[in-house]
Amino acid sequence: MYLEKIQSENDIKKIPENKLKDLASEIREFLIEKISVTGGHLGSNLGAVELTMALHLSLDLPKDKIIWDVGHQAYTHKLLTGRKDGFDTLRQYKGMAGFPKTKESECDAFNTGHSSTSISAGLGLVKARDLTGDDYTVVSVIGDGSLTGGMAYEALNNASKLETNFIVVLNDNNMSISENVGGVSKYLNGIRTADSYLDLKENVFTRLMNMPGGENWVKKIRKTKSSIKSLVIPGMFFEDMGITYLGPVDGHNIGAVREVLADAKRKKGPVLVHVITKKGFGYEPAERHPARFHGTEPFQIDSGIPKKPKTTASYTDVFSTVMVKLGERNKKVCAITAAMADGTGLKRFRNFYSDRFFDVGIAEEHAVTFAAGLAAGGLKPIVCIYSSFLQRAYDQIIHDVCLQNLPVVFAIDRAGIVGSDGETHQGVFDISYLSSIPNMTIMAPKNKWELSDMMKFAVSFDGPIAIRYPRGAAYEGLEEFREPVVLGKSEVIYSEDTIALVAVGSMVKTAQEVRDKLKERGINVTVVNTRFVKPIDEEMLRELTNNHRIIVTMEENVHSGGFGERVRAYLDSLDYSGKVLTVAIPDMFVEHGSVDLLKKEIGIDADSIINKIEDLM
Amino acid sequence: MYLEKIQSENDIKKIPENKLKDLASEIREFLIEKISVTGGHLGSNLGAVELTMALHLSLDLPKDKIIWDVGHQAYTHKLLTGRKDGFDTLRQYKGMAGFPKTKESECDAFNTGHSSTSISAGLGLVKARDLTGDDYTVVSVIGDGSLTGGMAYEALNNASKLETNFIVVLNDNNMSISENVGGVSKYLNGIRTADSYLDLKENVFTRLMNMPGGENWVKKIRKTKSSIKSLVIPGMFFEDMGITYLGPVDGHNIGAVREVLADAKRKKGPVLVHVITKKGFGYEPAERHPARFHGTEPFQIDSGIPKKPKTTASYTDVFSTVMVKLGERNKKVCAITAAMADGTGLKRFRNFYSDRFFDVGIAEEHAVTFAAGLAAGGLKPIVCIYSSFLQRAYDQIIHDVCLQNLPVVFAIDRAGIVGSDGETHQGVFDISYLSSIPNMTIMAPKNKWELSDMMKFAVSFDGPIAIRYPRGAAYEGLEEFREPVVLGKSEVIYSEDTIALVAVGSMVKTAQEVRDKLKERGINVTVVNTRFVKPIDEEMLRELTNNHRIIVTMEENVHSGGFGERVRAYLDSLDYSGKVLTVAIPDMFVEHGSVDLLKKEIGIDADSIINKIEDLM
Repeated sequence: MYLEKIQSENDIKKIPENKLKDLASEIREFLIEKISVTGGHLGSNLGAVELTMALHLSLDLPKDKIIWDVGHQAYTHKLLTGRKDGFDTLRQYKGMAGFPKTKESECDAFNTGHSSTSISAGLGLVKARDLTGDDYTVVSVIGDGSLTGGMAYEALNNASKLETNFIVVLNDNNMSISENVGGVSKYLNGIRTADSYLDLKENVFTRLMNMPGGENWVKKIRKTKSSIKSLVIPGMFFEDMGITYLGPVDGHNIGAVREVLADAKRKKGPVLVHVITKKGFGYEPAERHPARFHGTEPFQIDSGIPKKPKTTASYTDVFSTVMVKLGERNKKVCAITAAMADGTGLKRFRNFYSDRFFDVGIAEEHAVTFAAGLAAGGLKPIVCIYSSFLQRAYDQIIHDVCLQNLPVVFAIDRAGIVGSDGETHQGVFDISYLSSIPNMTIMAPKNKWELSDMMKFAVSFDGPIAIRYPRGAAYEGLEEFREPVVLGKSEVIYSEDTIALVAVGSMVKTAQEVRDKLKERGINVTVVNTRFVKPIDEEMLRELTNNHRIIVTMEENVHSGGFGERVRAYLDSLDYSGKVLTVAIPDMFVEHGSVDLLKKEIGIDADSIINKIEDLM
Repeated sequence: MYLEKIQSENDIKKIPENKLKDLASEIREFLIEKISVTGGHLGSNLGAVELTMALHLSLDLPKDKIIWDVGHQAYTHKLLTGRKDGFDTLRQYKGMAGFPKTKESECDAFNTGHSSTSISAGLGLVKARDLTGDDYTVVSVIGDGSLTGGMAYEALNNASKLETNFIVVLNDNNMSISENVGGVSKYLNGIRTADSYLDLKENVFTRLMNMPGGENWVKKIRKTKSSIKSLVIPGMFFEDMGITYLGPVDGHNIGAVREVLADAKRKKGPVLVHVITKKGFGYEPAERHPARFHGTEPFQIDSGIPKKPKTTASYTDVFSTVMVKLGERNKKVCAITAAMADGTGLKRFRNFYSDRFFDVGIAEEHAVTFAAGLAAGGLKPIVCIYSSFLQRAYDQIIHDVCLQNLPVVFAIDRAGIVGSDGETHQGVFDISYLSSIPNMTIMAPKNKWELSDMMKFAVSFDGPIAIRYPRGAAYEGLEEFREPVVLGKSEVIYSEDTIALVAVGSMVKTAQEVRDKLKERGINVTVVNTRFVKPIDEEMLRELTNNHRIIVTMEENVHSGGFGERVRAYLDSLDYSGKVLTVAIPDMFVEHGSVDLLKKEIGIDADSIINKIEDLM
């Protein structure tokens, strides 16, 4: 067992060369075993085992810096830096994070979570190194999927001017989370399959020189500058930008990767090392079903089948089903996703209406403006992007959609606390960033039927409109409350007096719990499902002020700019003399852990809310 | 006079071929004359005269769609679509906008203002056209500067899959607003200067075929797929992505551009037409000083000299001066701009400390994450981006800077109402979008000395911190108030009772005016300069509640998520029994016009505020 010998960074260097393959197998086995219990990202990690080992063998950590783009492929890196025990608490509350965290280890040079940031951050470190007179190697490891994100290109464009060493490893598995899309993918594929390049490089000049008049040709070709390089060097675009291209090499061959890294370290300037890997490598179920094993629940190792079969539908499932129906009923309905056809449930829409389905790659900015274009052209685009990723398109929502008041529907999955993915993935800002935008309408469903009703409403609505809904199981209670959705109108679930709970989306369920417990103590409680976060239902609020001493707003979003603050401003304008309590997420980044635990921790679970209400009474 | 004959779209087609050059001269003369009076964008418009004429001659408006990236080069387009008279009220309140507006003309297919959106929007229109069975041509016109923005690349990546016509015109003047940067620029330059390409294309195969064994070589070269195209076709990267490249052509030769557009229209698939133009073409002062004539104040036509020499320093000037000092004192201070070295005043810093100055191109996302990398590497980066453009980097501020609590300083110029650039450029969301982010500190200076003090404070601060300041002349009043800046502490300007005005940054001056007028009526008024928008000065607010009946917050930012809402929430928690008035920008997009007029119109000028206070009293 070689894995046992690895207690901290650089221990891998003590493993005999000829045993590295065995170590790779042990790591793979370890990861499969642990993730089969805790769940987590599997495919990307299995694909990066040898690449990570080669990086650790070639570098001196923590002095040298590795930046893992997205970061969900860093499990082997965590293993090789003394965090083996962490895998028992992977992605659990106060346990090891699923992403690199500078707080967790000094071998984690930069936090990641969202896509396409690593080259920008790496370039920053390189410039800092040069300006402070430091001396370390910086390596950004980026997948081909992340390369579809525009900011990676902005960074490459800037890296091209560098005169000192900077290594970008392109971990190319021809697949981001789902299948890869677009021209860059095509371009990389061209490189991958061009096996005759090296042959040409060796021979073309020699042969031309030996031909009559060949010398002139060589001169002429040289004169056309970069074009000749294209003939002999794959990765011409990178070369043309001023970035040395090395590769492609087999990313599962440790020796080959080490060799090319040694080469790369010697270059004075930016280098792109093109490494070909296979997602899920070495575990057949993951190789066969890369999307399912991207992020997986606990599973049975022999079959790859989930341990706990899903029994209840998630909001994503509901969205998925309704989208198919909407697509059938209305030929103008289009669906747009940013490399998340599986995660958003749009896969089914794609299967039925492939001509109206657009996976734009990891390119949220483009996704939103593209949707604005579709709407301007008379279609009804539904953009489905997770809450935390939609932050990327804040300006496009303002500038391209809302300013022109275009009818784009935003289906915002993973809104609120998401759990084990942690800080970078919590969807806790969307109410704030969307509420500030003129012309925007925002809804949140209390249960699965309401999501369906809201989607129908949104498709018929003539303006920008967003529906935010949480990750995980859709609430199946309150089925009996299904009045038609009316713009700006809330829904009263229980109409009493004394205390009013005005809850947004997922918090309606919590409000019910709060009510049940307060009723036990003999306190009357009204529960209102806001339905609309913007515009707020002023009429309803006005009525509540008549016979309620305390009005409580409840939302899975930060305080600042949230629903509660706007309600408070309105109640103030009414000279409401009762108390107002805003239940929202405090001004802090919320770490990973189970959703229930986190809600308790930040004070938005039923018991915490009851305590706050009692304090007020 | 041919220009007189142009009363509406397509009228240009009636001008005799041999008189088009004359028309171009007339247009140029017209633009220079009008802009010399109103001010506006000149250089980019002079550069696009012939290109626009060629587009109008080749297309059928409004059926066909032109999307002008950024949009400040669309003056000739406005002229050719019947908006000649609009130039007398250009960029004035209720006058003609400086950017394309669908509301203004049906020949404006899509609103623009921010960079790099046109290919995404165009692709959306193309898909809508194809799905609805429409039949029109879509042309996105994008500058080489805008091509440094990542979302343009995201869009190209997606366009590459198209099987129907879509034309992207690359208007390449080798210059965005200032000089162009990076690898793409280098790449385009390679194309521009490769005069032997066509020659090669004609000859290479013929010659090779005639050589002994040449046939095999041709086969072999063909087998290496794309590489041979590189040898003969400029724009290889685009071709490799699946986009037909046409050009480069002289963008001041109407005939040549029409010819290439005719070619482009025949292609089934995406086409990139590479057009070379010169910024400021035909007006010597603008050709010589492209940065100064990018956006210009009224000027004297013969000399190009501004009509009203600037007498007072702008906040940008103050920032510029202080940056040079900070750079001298602290070798860790770096400056980052996104293609705005002139506009932000960082040009001077660049002249002194070029190694610590980074112009990343129009790439706000990269700018922020790059700065995070610099900070992680031990430097003190100051990112200077206009308020409305920083919206582009909202996610990067959250994810790469604040989550790691990195000491990045954001110098946010053009915060608040900016005036004549209008809707797309108003900096009225930054307080909201920054306040929602944990770990972020936000300041705003009342006058020029405070901007300087705040910059020093920010550089010494260990965490993410933003300073927002307005466009235009720096306030020079209240010089006597210059207590040291202390984290989270406000500054009392006048301490009285009855009414308290708690003002953010630029609104301190307005608060003084309000106070003066209320004093005339015998009303006591306290004026507080908040200095810090986040964290709020709770101690100060607590004290105000003791002897003030009305507390008024004042800010140049939208209500939702603004300073006022957070103050209100805090005052509520104190059970403050007085009234609270929030002065902020209403939930609407604010159009173009003079800053003073706009402030009056939206109710944040002194008189409007006094009226609101009187209503409350």
